[in-house]
Amino acid sequence: MSFKYLTNIALEKAKQDYLQTLMHNGMVYKSEVIPVIKAAGRTTAQPVYAQICAPHYNASAMDGIALEAKLTFGASETTPALLAADQYQRLNTGDPLPEGCDCVVMIEDIIETDDGNGTVKLYEAAAPWQHIRQIGEDICAGEIIALSYAAITPSALGAMIAGGVTEISVIKRPVVGIIPTGDEIVPPTSNPGAGDILEFNSSIFSAMLSNWGAETKVYPIVPDQLEQIIATLKLAISECDIVILNAGSSAGSEDFAAEAIAAVGTVLYHGLAIKPGKPAILGYCGAKPVLGVPGYPVSGIIVIEQLLRPIVEFLNKSISEPDRYMEAVLSKAVVSTLKYREFVRVRMGYVGSRLIASPLSRGSGVVTSFMKADGIVEVPQGVEGYESGVNINVRLLRSAEELKQSLVVIGSHDPLLDELAELLRVRYGDVSLGSAHVGSMGGLLAIRREEAHVAGTHLLNTETGEYNRSFIQKLLPKSGARLVQCVKRTQGIITQKGNPKRIAQIADLAQGGLRYINRQKGSGTRILIDYLCNKDGLDTTLIYGYDREEFTHTSVAALIAAGSADAGLGVFSAAKLYGLDFIPICQEQYDLLIPEHSWGLPMVQKMLEVLGSDEFCARIDVLGGYELDSPGVVREVF
Amino acid sequence: MSFKYLTNIALEKAKQDYLQTLMHNGMVYKSEVIPVIKAAGRTTAQPVYAQICAPHYNASAMDGIALEAKLTFGASETTPALLAADQYQRLNTGDPLPEGCDCVVMIEDIIETDDGNGTVKLYEAAAPWQHIRQIGEDICAGEIIALSYAAITPSALGAMIAGGVTEISVIKRPVVGIIPTGDEIVPPTSNPGAGDILEFNSSIFSAMLSNWGAETKVYPIVPDQLEQIIATLKLAISECDIVILNAGSSAGSEDFAAEAIAAVGTVLYHGLAIKPGKPAILGYCGAKPVLGVPGYPVSGIIVIEQLLRPIVEFLNKSISEPDRYMEAVLSKAVVSTLKYREFVRVRMGYVGSRLIASPLSRGSGVVTSFMKADGIVEVPQGVEGYESGVNINVRLLRSAEELKQSLVVIGSHDPLLDELAELLRVRYGDVSLGSAHVGSMGGLLAIRREEAHVAGTHLLNTETGEYNRSFIQKLLPKSGARLVQCVKRTQGIITQKGNPKRIAQIADLAQGGLRYINRQKGSGTRILIDYLCNKDGLDTTLIYGYDREEFTHTSVAALIAAGSADAGLGVFSAAKLYGLDFIPICQEQYDLLIPEHSWGLPMVQKMLEVLGSDEFCARIDVLGGYELDSPGVVREVF
Repeated sequence: MSFKYLTNIALEKAKQDYLQTLMHNGMVYKSEVIPVIKAAGRTTAQPVYAQICAPHYNASAMDGIALEAKLTFGASETTPALLAADQYQRLNTGDPLPEGCDCVVMIEDIIETDDGNGTVKLYEAAAPWQHIRQIGEDICAGEIIALSYAAITPSALGAMIAGGVTEISVIKRPVVGIIPTGDEIVPPTSNPGAGDILEFNSSIFSAMLSNWGAETKVYPIVPDQLEQIIATLKLAISECDIVILNAGSSAGSEDFAAEAIAAVGTVLYHGLAIKPGKPAILGYCGAKPVLGVPGYPVSGIIVIEQLLRPIVEFLNKSISEPDRYMEAVLSKAVVSTLKYREFVRVRMGYVGSRLIASPLSRGSGVVTSFMKADGIVEVPQGVEGYESGVNINVRLLRSAEELKQSLVVIGSHDPLLDELAELLRVRYGDVSLGSAHVGSMGGLLAIRREEAHVAGTHLLNTETGEYNRSFIQKLLPKSGARLVQCVKRTQGIITQKGNPKRIAQIADLAQGGLRYINRQKGSGTRILIDYLCNKDGLDTTLIYGYDREEFTHTSVAALIAAGSADAGLGVFSAAKLYGLDFIPICQEQYDLLIPEHSWGLPMVQKMLEVLGSDEFCARIDVLGGYELDSPGVVREVF
Repeated sequence: MSFKYLTNIALEKAKQDYLQTLMHNGMVYKSEVIPVIKAAGRTTAQPVYAQICAPHYNASAMDGIALEAKLTFGASETTPALLAADQYQRLNTGDPLPEGCDCVVMIEDIIETDDGNGTVKLYEAAAPWQHIRQIGEDICAGEIIALSYAAITPSALGAMIAGGVTEISVIKRPVVGIIPTGDEIVPPTSNPGAGDILEFNSSIFSAMLSNWGAETKVYPIVPDQLEQIIATLKLAISECDIVILNAGSSAGSEDFAAEAIAAVGTVLYHGLAIKPGKPAILGYCGAKPVLGVPGYPVSGIIVIEQLLRPIVEFLNKSISEPDRYMEAVLSKAVVSTLKYREFVRVRMGYVGSRLIASPLSRGSGVVTSFMKADGIVEVPQGVEGYESGVNINVRLLRSAEELKQSLVVIGSHDPLLDELAELLRVRYGDVSLGSAHVGSMGGLLAIRREEAHVAGTHLLNTETGEYNRSFIQKLLPKSGARLVQCVKRTQGIITQKGNPKRIAQIADLAQGGLRYINRQKGSGTRILIDYLCNKDGLDTTLIYGYDREEFTHTSVAALIAAGSADAGLGVFSAAKLYGLDFIPICQEQYDLLIPEHSWGLPMVQKMLEVLGSDEFCARIDVLGGYELDSPGVVREVF
């Protein structure tokens, strides 16, 4: 009933033992015979021998006439060779060489005479076999056109057909059965009930597996009933080459996966020394892998990538391109446990002279972290993690070219950043804007550490009432940077629709029974609420939930909309997005800080251009609660 | 009626004008709405907004109990917090957080008491919101999950479903219609008649186009009738986004493509300054490209890659990975004309310290040249070509990793080399053996120039009757190399089945009406026949066809089998392959020469291992006419 029953096997050993056991049990690739014209992209299972020569007859390589070369020997400008109509034959490219002819003369080298008998003149002798594609020029019958285990490229396809091959034996794609389980799991929908978990893992897994050349078969969702799981497993094993049993692989009260797999086959290992992905079950039934995969999407992705990819490639006889790695500077410390090998998703970008890797959310339920990831940092078992600023080796999920085009925006969150990213994407397909929401302070610090191209900031100097300026001077005393105007935006209290708690001012946040939802420390909005409370002499410890922190305006509004909180400070656009009530408190200045080293970059200039565009105005207008502050114009140079 | 009517437009200008004209005519991508679960690998046409939050309720991240955190404040080892049964609720991972609870405590941190009322003990205070996946932790409703024109990766697919998205608008794949034409064109078969040309271009083109994300529709073969071609063009234009009219694009008497395209639309250019591919027709009908593609496969491949790929990618909103280039040393001079930009296929390999690029056959009918190619060398318009030994920039068709595993064998041809390649492939999937047949002499020279890892050689010293030794000493005076034993093979006269010309000895080759087929100068077999004739005092000018040269034993046999020649000197295995008669003349020694710098390479050692294997013996036995000469054993070190 608890985790301690799971083993903690090192990944490499587990992989090796698993593959060896399966091979020892007779796991081998299958082949099938298919028509050549359907074989594009497949892999040959045997050498392909040419059935005929290509060309299979001596063919003219030109439009012209065919003749016996010796008739032209000695021909020259002064003494041309004359050919009577019966001494040559006209033919077009591809026509077979007539009996008794051994060369072709091009149409433009033939001088027609006017003797009326079709006699032609040649000013040059023809060499035997000139302009003739001889039998077997391309392929000789009996030759090997393609070796075993060769990828069938477009030209290989053409060569096979040219060689008279109509059917070939190719590697059969392994079929992977995917069984989703769980009482709480429901098929994809736009309005799930509370407690319903949308079944999207099988879609992720299917897409991954087909990228590796496998076919997939997804079974209907099975409830947490041991007998039903066993029955479905048996069916899948009979129908597929590989079976994935999704979720129930842990050790909770409703985790039947291990028991079910043991009932139909053998469990080699239950529990790997990796994170995410620990509760994986490496099982098999004879020569067929039966893998118990954890329910959290990120765990599942990593388990399948690490354990099934090699097996699928083994069964496909396909050699995958080796992973690409690059050195990068870690922007934030990564703390790991000695116990596990950890896979950390990172976002990457070239800032200044360095390639920066910024860790993304490590929650194994956060599928977007994989979607946003540019690379994976592996913290080996036995290593406690890496400090911020160290050089690390990153496995790339995108090409170096793409990374060069990724604009790193770190700092204060505002919904307009997504709209900016979209406009950039539409106007300049090559630039991708990735934003990390660490608050205004975090943004300035990222600029100081040379880890971002742009930082969104709205820091209020409570003495002067002025924004950003003083903070930049304090945090970036020397380094040159430009502060670019963007918008003025309205901050206020976001409340449930209809404002049931009757909130009119900051002081009302302390009322009994009100659940406040706050922003993280260091964010401009947090600094603002601290200031506002302080100004009104309000003791923040009296505000329930003041320590409950979210990282974006949107998530604050989302929690209020869902009834999980009653109020929070945020921008109007976030309230509007969810149709919530909004009590305006003040208007603040939201600027973008851009360091000198980034200013000249084409992608930064493109962003500034978009900032100043009418489309941007229009988008901002739709979001609501903004006042354009001549976006893109430099406010001040530091 | 002749080539002079074709224009000679520079490729870049033609590409640019073509794309601009089409865009000016309104060529744009199309979109379609499809279910998300079918969207893997597609490209978004619009930003995808989350419909719901993920998670859409506050969910337990652990198996354990839910409670109000403040009930545990101050708890410690000495003063544990006691929770009555009504103060907590048991729940599993993923279960919704019950009303009034604000945290979860893991099952293993709970101490059950034995008071029989279900009271539990906690030795540690719980922090509010611990072990809870809060609403929107992954995705907030209304947020952009994916921007426009984004590739839908497996994780993106998962994120969309998690965000409650069930349908999305994606880029519609452009449909390319392919119309094969020509009276001589027939569908793929193993026994075409003389003059029949197998229709394999549409298979090649379809495979290329689907690799770029297009759908293809191949129309039935249309004979060389203008009206029928026009009718089919009209149909295809109405059904497809892009139309390819294959062949008839030249200016021969049956080339109707230009006329047909002009009849249904406009011809922008007819004739490009490229080779192969010159007679391309850049036409359009409104916003739809209608491309006239030459009939030779290599020409077609290049025209489609150069002109259609950018259009398909434009319509797919897909940004293809940029081509990869590498510097290499050209092993053979490439002579080009100033008039055209030429695309030369090359085979590549790392020999010694250099990456070598060896030009393959430049015949535009030789589809295998594309299949074997590792890269493309472009000779710009206005450049006469490149000399042997110069550094050139090569566009890679294979990865650098693959090139490192390619074993370069240059020299004398023998069918056993293909069998060797196959065995290597099966035993070591990573090694690929590529052989170029330039004769024994060419092989030794390649070794001297450090352009090959291995050379097959069987050079007879006509004074001593000894093989290879003296030639190596003469051609490689200093450079170290090892001569490795391979086979003794029987050379003889290959004749038609039943030997109708009654050939018994070399002298018989001079008989009237006999058509001899020879091997190229510098090949061991050519040197042998020269020697044999000379020995018998036979004047080779009396042998008809003595100047007709082929590069392999197989092609000599193929021409004889096809009745295009009566006799030729070659090895028994080639005669056997075609069931031809064979008059044995002598047995010769076929060795492999391996230079020191290659000897230590793993792939060379693997080859030697395979040479000594039983499988190799067995294959040799099947080929016939060989005597194993302890293959793989070093005969002599030079």
